[in-house]
Amino acid sequence: MKLPGGFRAGGVAAGIKASGLDLALVVADQQVPTAAVFTTSAAPAAPVALSQDHLTDGLAQAVLLNSGCANAATGADGLHAARDTARGVAALLDAAPEDVIVCSTGVIGTRLPVDLIQAALPGLMAASSRDGLHTAAEAIMTTDTHPKLAHRTGPPLVVGMAKGSGMIRPDMATMLAVLTTDAVVNPQVLQAVLREAVDVSFNVLTVDSCMSTNDTVVAMASGSSGVEADPASLLEHMSGVCTDLAKQIAADGEGATKQVTIEVVGVESQELARRLGLAVADSALVRSSFAAADPNWGRVIAALGAAGRDPSGVTISYQDVEVARSGVAARFDAPALRRRLSGDFTVRIDFGGGPGSAAVFTCDMTPEYVVENMETS
Amino acid sequence: MKLPGGFRAGGVAAGIKASGLDLALVVADQQVPTAAVFTTSAAPAAPVALSQDHLTDGLAQAVLLNSGCANAATGADGLHAARDTARGVAALLDAAPEDVIVCSTGVIGTRLPVDLIQAALPGLMAASSRDGLHTAAEAIMTTDTHPKLAHRTGPPLVVGMAKGSGMIRPDMATMLAVLTTDAVVNPQVLQAVLREAVDVSFNVLTVDSCMSTNDTVVAMASGSSGVEADPASLLEHMSGVCTDLAKQIAADGEGATKQVTIEVVGVESQELARRLGLAVADSALVRSSFAAADPNWGRVIAALGAAGRDPSGVTISYQDVEVARSGVAARFDAPALRRRLSGDFTVRIDFGGGPGSAAVFTCDMTPEYVVENMETS
Repeated sequence: MKLPGGFRAGGVAAGIKASGLDLALVVADQQVPTAAVFTTSAAPAAPVALSQDHLTDGLAQAVLLNSGCANAATGADGLHAARDTARGVAALLDAAPEDVIVCSTGVIGTRLPVDLIQAALPGLMAASSRDGLHTAAEAIMTTDTHPKLAHRTGPPLVVGMAKGSGMIRPDMATMLAVLTTDAVVNPQVLQAVLREAVDVSFNVLTVDSCMSTNDTVVAMASGSSGVEADPASLLEHMSGVCTDLAKQIAADGEGATKQVTIEVVGVESQELARRLGLAVADSALVRSSFAAADPNWGRVIAALGAAGRDPSGVTISYQDVEVARSGVAARFDAPALRRRLSGDFTVRIDFGGGPGSAAVFTCDMTPEYVVENMETS
Repeated sequence: MKLPGGFRAGGVAAGIKASGLDLALVVADQQVPTAAVFTTSAAPAAPVALSQDHLTDGLAQAVLLNSGCANAATGADGLHAARDTARGVAALLDAAPEDVIVCSTGVIGTRLPVDLIQAALPGLMAASSRDGLHTAAEAIMTTDTHPKLAHRTGPPLVVGMAKGSGMIRPDMATMLAVLTTDAVVNPQVLQAVLREAVDVSFNVLTVDSCMSTNDTVVAMASGSSGVEADPASLLEHMSGVCTDLAKQIAADGEGATKQVTIEVVGVESQELARRLGLAVADSALVRSSFAAADPNWGRVIAALGAAGRDPSGVTISYQDVEVARSGVAARFDAPALRRRLSGDFTVRIDFGGGPGSAAVFTCDMTPEYVVENMETS
């Protein structure tokens, strides 16, 4: 997937991890409009704090991302380390350090190996190209099993990458994403569009209900198309790319064997629909039943009730097969339905009332999720 | 464990489950002061709705409990079924149906087999005795691996039983509990004492963050001691029994290998301490690390941050060994600490500030939790 004009990207092995690619760069030809959405954690990692500071003017030239170390819970030293790496990139670009965004993902509480990163930067810069996003996406993987890329052809062209697999929940996931577009757009519009795109994608994504210290989504607009973006088109394309990436993250959730979409319809507002959908997706019992291809609507009812919504009139369908109507059991061909739940599927929860609806993206919960997270960090 | 004077209990196999005891009774010699705390789910099961109605006068004579079927998400039929079983008990006691409390636990969405229960009632009544609480506790087990009993010797004598293993979280657990005391106490005081006892025990218990449709804690006071209860002593004994039972439930959490207590100290209020403790206990990542005997304080930091509390000044200890100080890594002997985390342990999170503190009871999360919940219901 070629980057829009005006961008290069790449990834190298800097030695932060024991093996494999672990340092990525997305860089524009010059300072360009840049927007970002960050974790809402009260314990933001050092790179989050620094990048928020660097983006006050809505402009940046490069995003440096590393896996293998989150640089979180590292205090003042962590902030110095993040700043040093931003300075390293800026020096190579002859840019201001404030035009470099930094993102880290990995273990919390360990020091960022700044020297390893500085030593790898010239090679990373040299290796970056318009064809390098796949390599960059590989370099930011942690427990991901494959790199995640998505695009919408122009105008405006939007091309993005993401990582994320565990510690994934709204606002946001343990999730890093970088989106690039060739649109001409000012920073304020780009920020508004990005926030809205994140809201219908990464913010309705839950793998394990755990919010990370490091979540960051960055969007950069090179303007290489020379065409002022229609905000509606840019939103559509950016939302499309973000939704594709969010579903890829759900499907690649730690230990997951299938991606499940929860649709809630017929309630008073979109906000309520989303809250109820997330409550269902957040239930470990519900997600365990997904793994067993078991249309266990009773657990869905319990999750809705726990979220404060009386589900007595609800109709619940798995892959368009009604399993509960008016809040009580419906008749259905269970063996046939189970076979349809062996792959990705959709659960639809219809309250039959108002106009509010929302879709939430999650995955099944398997014993492997726990096995992966029992590994020593 | 002998019941206080004035009570009998027992359990039988009514055939609700494929095998094993599944119907229990706790019965007083006559109508006695009775208090209860119920699930706050907006989808309460039929027995919860009926029992709330029956307890408006603060008096009851019997509690009928079944496992194997939750009688939840069963609509009007479910309510009729619950009422029929209460009438069956009342008829045998020559009491009013309103003096019978009913509790159900098991699969959601299936019909209560009323005929099987009615047929078993005479035998259950005949088998009940002051020594029958252990058998009753066995009959209410679902995924529990053993019956749960606790007591505090008098005055006032308090003897209780509980069940619960999955779908356990505050307000409350998938949890049924019946407490009995020989104290003389009026219904209002009993209700106030029970609510306070539940607040420091079952309401700070989380196994999987899933609230049930059926949670019920009932307390009955026979007055057989002839001694008016000192409310403070009654609270102390009832809190003690509830805390013992809550810890037993945590230790017997689905798939759990150890019970873990999370202590939060040094924050502004008890309420905040409790909320933060529950946020840590609710993290699947934190609980998975408990299973690995891994003092992964980074995940604790992430959970605190996600809960909206800046943990940058926090000191975290596992079994009295500091692993983080002022929010960053401390030096400790990791292999030695890991060995100490092979059994039950305590995590202490000290914010070093205000007088607010709380203890929260949970367990580790193992792959077996998911395996158990992947079994078809």
